[in-house]
This record gives sequence, structure tokens and C-alpha cells, in this order.
Amino acid sequence: MDPLVFDNGTLMVLDQARLPSEVSYIEIRDHACMAQAIRNLNIRGAPAIGAGAAYGIALGAGLIESSDMAAFLEKLDGIIGIITATRPTARNLFQAADRMRLCAWRYDSPAAAKRELVNEARCIHREQYDQDMAISRHGVDLIPAGATILTHCNTGSLATAGYGTALGVIKLAHQRDRSIRVLATETRPLLQGARLTALELGEAGIPFDLITDSAAGYYMARGRISLVITGADRIALNGDTANKIGTYTLAVLAGAHGLPFYVAAPLTTFDPATATGRDILVEERSPEEVTLFNGSASAPPGTPVLNPAFDVTPAGLVTAFITDQGLLQPEGIRKAVRQSK
Amino acid sequence: MDPLVFDNGTLMVLDQARLPSEVSYIEIRDHACMAQAIRNLNIRGAPAIGAGAAYGIALGAGLIESSDMAAFLEKLDGIIGIITATRPTARNLFQAADRMRLCAWRYDSPAAAKRELVNEARCIHREQYDQDMAISRHGVDLIPAGATILTHCNTGSLATAGYGTALGVIKLAHQRDRSIRVLATETRPLLQGARLTALELGEAGIPFDLITDSAAGYYMARGRISLVITGADRIALNGDTANKIGTYTLAVLAGAHGLPFYVAAPLTTFDPATATGRDILVEERSPEEVTLFNGSASAPPGTPVLNPAFDVTPAGLVTAFITDQGLLQPEGIRKAVRQSK
Repeated sequence: MDPLVFDNGTLMVLDQARLPSEVSYIEIRDHACMAQAIRNLNIRGAPAIGAGAAYGIALGAGLIESSDMAAFLEKLDGIIGIITATRPTARNLFQAADRMRLCAWRYDSPAAAKRELVNEARCIHREQYDQDMAISRHGVDLIPAGATILTHCNTGSLATAGYGTALGVIKLAHQRDRSIRVLATETRPLLQGARLTALELGEAGIPFDLITDSAAGYYMARGRISLVITGADRIALNGDTANKIGTYTLAVLAGAHGLPFYVAAPLTTFDPATATGRDILVEERSPEEVTLFNGSASAPPGTPVLNPAFDVTPAGLVTAFITDQGLLQPEGIRKAVRQSK
Repeated sequence: MDPLVFDNGTLMVLDQARLPSEVSYIEIRDHACMAQAIRNLNIRGAPAIGAGAAYGIALGAGLIESSDMAAFLEKLDGIIGIITATRPTARNLFQAADRMRLCAWRYDSPAAAKRELVNEARCIHREQYDQDMAISRHGVDLIPAGATILTHCNTGSLATAGYGTALGVIKLAHQRDRSIRVLATETRPLLQGARLTALELGEAGIPFDLITDSAAGYYMARGRISLVITGADRIALNGDTANKIGTYTLAVLAGAHGLPFYVAAPLTTFDPATATGRDILVEERSPEEVTLFNGSASAPPGTPVLNPAFDVTPAGLVTAFITDQGLLQPEGIRKAVRQSK
């Protein structure tokens, strides 16, 4: 199951909102379709959103009719604006959009720019796999034999359109016969752990158990968890990390139990424009994500809901960042981000 | 909505598993019916389970045909065994059962014992309201004006068949115009917060928001929570507290943010036979509670699940116990439990 399939000019997006009960693909014809797919979480996970956004921009650019380059670039900016207005927290979305804009600027004619935008999107998509493998190789040495690893949300192939970040590390540790087990949190409200991580762990043949988000502390207190690895949606230059709601709680719990807490993410998730976690905008999503499940209500009608999609884990709670360029401590982030440009 | 209605010898139990979408009652004819209702969570909440168990024992006793007292008591023990085999963690279940057994022993004939067992059950039920009001009066002085209170699971009238423990304190603070707000966790897997606490808060007109369990840490980090109050299912003599899964996590988070963490429970929830939390048996419930919602699957078929219903919060994380006999610190528990006997 590939979350993004681009073939012969046609882009198909796996509808992750319907997993695991239904495997179906949505055809994406332009940037507006892609914006909707990102907003509806048909495609999700910061790296996959980045690659999807790049394809969406390339498809939208292909439909611009102007032959004047200045007019083309202006229209391209409008397309990029529509794509980036979908989800405020995912760093890779903005990083991919910037890269696509820079790509177009390098060409003199809309025709050349259109062709190269498609190539750039494929390149962003393909690079993800290499980045994920680099992350996984750097991370696997942190996993002791026999470890039980707690992970949150979904950070596998479905989330990155590559090999996976946190789940990539886990998959590689399993492939290298480390005799690991996984505890996967279900990850309310949208149950990416139950729906997607359980699917990927099952397919990879990795021994695991699904738990409610609330049970992580219980198993830490019982000495049943060796370490925690999560992904990230945006990392500030000081190391403060925005990730799926509940990540901060797991980091506090890991700290209280003396367990390592790792964040696995490509350098593209680190944001040079975000100094600290206070600068990260946390997306608030609809109440129905909390009060409805497959159309069935779990709360009385009209129940008021607060539904932040992410939280911010202070750098001090992160044992190390596992990146495609190696392990990083917070104080090494600025230099690594500068060098990667 | 009263979780337990005993009238003219007929016992009706509100089916809380169907709330909030359906308000229906189940007629309970004997102890086996009540055992099933407890196991299926039609009636839940440690104090309500205690009162329900007492009625179930009284009804079962009423059906014993023997006129020999020794044979009656032996059959009564069988009935009590069936009732107490339902849920291992709720202290009030065992406390009520012991009280019913002692009641029967005071009489010479099955006829007299049967009559008094019914009275004893009504007494246990009625006392709950007085205990809850005493808890609420002791607790309300801990609530500053304008406080935002985080609570977990359901601890209101539905959970106690009285006024409520943690939610009783909250209701009384609201009645006394303390301008409080509540953040109620949805409480996975069975969503007692979303289904039941949201219902009770709405009916009481208390301003509140529902959040996922994972969002509690986020709001603590943002300074949006003043204090935490939860109930308890069993409290050891050293103050270690078994309560709904997720309570321990909230206690760790409260500690990390310097917030008071209160446990509201009647003295009947403190167990003289349990020295520390290590002696508390935590019930493991079925995987389907995690993977099914109203018959709709949230995880791939066959996903392995660990589903502990409770966790144990060490006494050191509890700021104070709010009991019907006043506030207690862990070191005061032994004396208070001894005096209450």
C-alpha cells in the first residue's frame, strides 16, 4: 500500500481515512483536489503531506494557461497558497512548497517550469525513501536487543510515502533480528495507531500490542517499556517538537520513568524560521473527530469539544533526534539545518 | 436518571452502556442478572457497583428456598461469590458484599434475614448520597474561584447512585457560584467521560469542554488547568490508588506541572486488606472494548490488544484524599479506616 502513486501523469492518493476497513485510491487532478485530500486526512503524516503537496503544486502548475513567465509565477504562488493553507503545523508541507517555488524560478518559460516541477515533485517523493532509510540506520543502533518500544500515531510508509521515520527505525530493528516488541498507542481522536500502525506492524510481522493512549503510563510503571520513539510534524531550532497530540504526555512519562525518548524525523522537518515551540501554531480540528466514530455519536449532541491536533514537547524531554544526517542534540540543530541548505 | 431504582420489590438498572444515545432500564430479578449487569458495565462506578451488588445479593437471598439458617447462609455465600466474581478491582463491591454477609449472620431465620437484607441494601444505597454530599462539602473548599478543573472518567450520580464523588465536588462548587469550568477527558476505551460525564455536566449547566485523554498534558502545559480531581476504585492503606486507566498519567502530569491532584472517595473505597498498590489486582478487559465502537472496527481484524481497565497511582502523587470523613493524607488513612469500622 503506497500512499502516493504517480504514474503516466496520473496521481493517485491512498484514502487513509478509510483504512483499515477499505483500501481505495482517490485520483488527484489538480492542486485543489490535493488540498482537499490533505485537509480531509486522506493523505497524512508530515513527510507524505510534503510529497503530496509537491505533486499537487506540479499538477496545478500544469493547468496554468499563461505563456508569460511572470504571470505563470504569480498564478503558481496562488496555487502554493491554496496547498499550504491546508494544515498549519506540518513543516514538510511548507518546505516542499518552498522548494517547488524555487524550482519554477530557475526556468525562463512556463513549459520548462511545468516539466521540471513534475520532476521536482518526483524527486521530493523519491528522496523520502532515502531519508527514511538513513534515519532508520542511524536509529537502529539505539535499540537494544529484546527492547519493547512504545510508539505513537503512525510514522511508517503510510506517513512518509517512504520507509517510515520512527516506524522505519522499528522495522529495521526487526529486520536485523533484534527481538523487539512494540506497544502502539491507538492515538485518539483519529486512531492512526489502531488503524494504520497496527496494519503496518502486522504486515511487517513485528510482534506488537495495541493499547489506549492512557495505558502507556501503566506499562511504563510496570517496567514493560524500554524506550519511546515518535515522529515529528515540526521541530523548532531549539529542539521543541510539535507532534501528534499525546506526544508531550508520553515524553513527560518517559522522563518520569527514566526512559529514553527519541524523535525520528528528516532534517526537512526542522524549521529554520521557528526559534522555539512558542512559535509553532497548533492546528485545532473539528469537534466531530472526537464525538463521532464512523457516524456513531460518543457524546451527547452539542457537547463542546477542544480538539488540538498536536502538542509541543520541550527539547529538554528529548533524549536525541534521529535524523537522516545522524543523531542530533538540541544544541546541534542550528548547525545541521544550516549545513543542509 | 438514577442508575438504580428499587421500588415495590422491583429493581431496575439504568443501562449505562447505551447512554447517551438511549435511556433504557434493565429489570434485575436476581443475583445472576445483577452479576451480568456489573460485568457488562450496565452499572459501573465503584460506589454504584457496591449498591447494585447489595441489591443483587438481597434479591438472590429472597429466592433461597431453605428454611434452615445454616443452609441459607451457605447458599448466601454462593450468591455473594457470584456477585463478587464480576470485577476484581472495585473495593466497594467487596465492602458491600461483606456488609450483606454480616447482616444475614445477625438473624436466626431465613425469613428475618431476607427481610433485613433488603433493608440493608436500601441502606447502603441511601448512605451513598450522604457520603457523597459529605465528600463534596469537604472538597468544595479546595476549589478556588474561577478554577478550571480536569476530571477523568465518570464520578457523578451515575457512578455512585448518589450525588457523585469527584463530580460531586465539582457540582457543589458550581452550585456555590465559584465560576468554575471543567475539562472532561473522554476516557478511552469505553468513553465514560464523553458519554456520561458530558451528560451530567450538561444537565447541571456547568461550563465544560470535552477533550481526548491525550490532550490533558497540552492544556496543563498551557496553564489552562488549575487542579485535577478523580474518583477511585480501590485505595490501599498506604494511599496507592487504583482508578480508571489514565489516572496515573494525569497524576504524573499534574506533578510535573505543580498542580494539585485530588482523589475523592468514600472511606468504603479504602481497603483495610490492601497494604499497598502492589496488592491491587488490575482487571484486564476484552480487546473489543478498544477495537470496536458501536460494532464498527477501528483496527485490522485480529489486532492484538492489551486492555487494563485501571492503573495504580502511587500515594506520593496524591495531594489529598477527599473523603466523607474529611481530607486525608496517606499517613492518616490507617487511623481513619480503623475508626470507621
